[in-house]
Amino acid sequence: MTKEELIRNIFAKKSFLCVGLDTDIKKIPEHLLKEEDPIFAFNKAIIDATAPYCVAYKPNLAFYEAFGVKGIMAFEKTIRYIQQNYPDQFIIADAKRGDIGNTSAMYARTFFDEYNLDAVTVAPYMGEDSVRPFLTEGREDKTHWVILLALTSNKGSHDFQLLRTRDTEGQGPDTEVMPLYERVLRKSQEWADDSRMMYVIGATQGKAFEAIRKIVPKNFLLVPGIGAQGGSLEEVCRYGMNKDCGLIVNNSRAIIYADNTANFAAAAREKSKEMQQQMACELAKLA
Amino acid sequence: MTKEELIRNIFAKKSFLCVGLDTDIKKIPEHLLKEEDPIFAFNKAIIDATAPYCVAYKPNLAFYEAFGVKGIMAFEKTIRYIQQNYPDQFIIADAKRGDIGNTSAMYARTFFDEYNLDAVTVAPYMGEDSVRPFLTEGREDKTHWVILLALTSNKGSHDFQLLRTRDTEGQGPDTEVMPLYERVLRKSQEWADDSRMMYVIGATQGKAFEAIRKIVPKNFLLVPGIGAQGGSLEEVCRYGMNKDCGLIVNNSRAIIYADNTANFAAAAREKSKEMQQQMACELAKLA
Repeated sequence: MTKEELIRNIFAKKSFLCVGLDTDIKKIPEHLLKEEDPIFAFNKAIIDATAPYCVAYKPNLAFYEAFGVKGIMAFEKTIRYIQQNYPDQFIIADAKRGDIGNTSAMYARTFFDEYNLDAVTVAPYMGEDSVRPFLTEGREDKTHWVILLALTSNKGSHDFQLLRTRDTEGQGPDTEVMPLYERVLRKSQEWADDSRMMYVIGATQGKAFEAIRKIVPKNFLLVPGIGAQGGSLEEVCRYGMNKDCGLIVNNSRAIIYADNTANFAAAAREKSKEMQQQMACELAKLA
Repeated sequence: MTKEELIRNIFAKKSFLCVGLDTDIKKIPEHLLKEEDPIFAFNKAIIDATAPYCVAYKPNLAFYEAFGVKGIMAFEKTIRYIQQNYPDQFIIADAKRGDIGNTSAMYARTFFDEYNLDAVTVAPYMGEDSVRPFLTEGREDKTHWVILLALTSNKGSHDFQLLRTRDTEGQGPDTEVMPLYERVLRKSQEWADDSRMMYVIGATQGKAFEAIRKIVPKNFLLVPGIGAQGGSLEEVCRYGMNKDCGLIVNNSRAIIYADNTANFAAAAREKSKEMQQQMACELAKLA
């Protein structure tokens, strides 16, 4: 999906909500456990209930891989179901991959060629040649995206991402001292533009969005951490929105586990609708 | 596997070789393509040929995931085959995972509970709470390991891992300036000791091993980058070995693709035997 198409969907649906499909078999309603594929049955119901109110889905690979072959089958069925029934949804593989070139190329092949997903989350630690294969392997069509981790929503984001850094050479404009995550933002701007690169910025980072928008004014930001992790939608929008919206805000647990009875899908619908309405208000401020 | 068991295996077999199972269906001998599961057929032959000369296997998840359900089945068959036939082999899932706590916990469940592997490679960018679930979730038995990325073998290791860092507070002993990878080494020493934590240090990093050994004198290092990527075994041993050996040196392509005819397994045997003999010489220097 191109950036223009994504923006069009956001304004048409008055939503920049992403529903995170972190489907844990231990948390889904008990009546689903008798289904042949309980994870897919759960996802299908959640997708049908929430699709009018969101523009993206983000299955989290960890939750599928934990069930081996069965989990991967549930993952595949889930993404095919979205692609066939809701082709305007942007699908993100939340995988946090990143490895030496030939290995990243294999991951790119999985998520883009095999599954034809829109985006994959990538960890920056191994640098340029670990990220480029997601951008270049015959993928100059600008419809596949890298979503690079920059400043994440968890407590551990303080361990390394906020370290003050200087470059190794110690001369030239790069000698400026800046936190590691800023350097990730700046450096990665050399690898792709805002038509193919987004960044993960945790909702819990509050005012950091203001500084981030100065570095990456046009890139979309994928924002986890609203809800269970404590981030505020209003604050994220105040500091992080740009004229194109520029945000995809994810919510997983507050939506998909809104209720754990037979009423779960209706509860997920209500919760996603409620979030969409808050988002519509935020989008209205752009007009 | 405990550290003591690993050391015992290394000295018994006079080898610290890890065979990387980066099995690419495009590179395996053509006659295997008619097998029901060509990837597993290839791995099985490689494992039978190399097991006498190595102490570890490292399947690279990217290469299995690229084939969806079929790939995961080949991965599962491969690790079961090693576990059943060569129970003294240390098995590393080369996955480079790392995510917020509940997600890392799911990955830990996959690799440790579901597959009962010895170790998984983990990326440090998201900090402590992204790594701890691999160490703590009922896994105080000290037989499961985290192998944390520190200084990798690829060119992109220069982009962030070598950045000079100061901590965010700017006071106390932590204000010392050091490269990011050193900070990863130092910080992570607080999370687990050398009975459960290893580090990835690329063979291409040469003399950096000397500085690294001052920070982590006792930890095992997983060393990729010998061969195709240009690292030297002798140099790695000179600067990186400790009295327990302290090294697991990986080779993937030079062994598994030593020959692409029907003779591939015999060629892999020869190549792994040759490496084992070089390693025996290096180990002899410790005596």
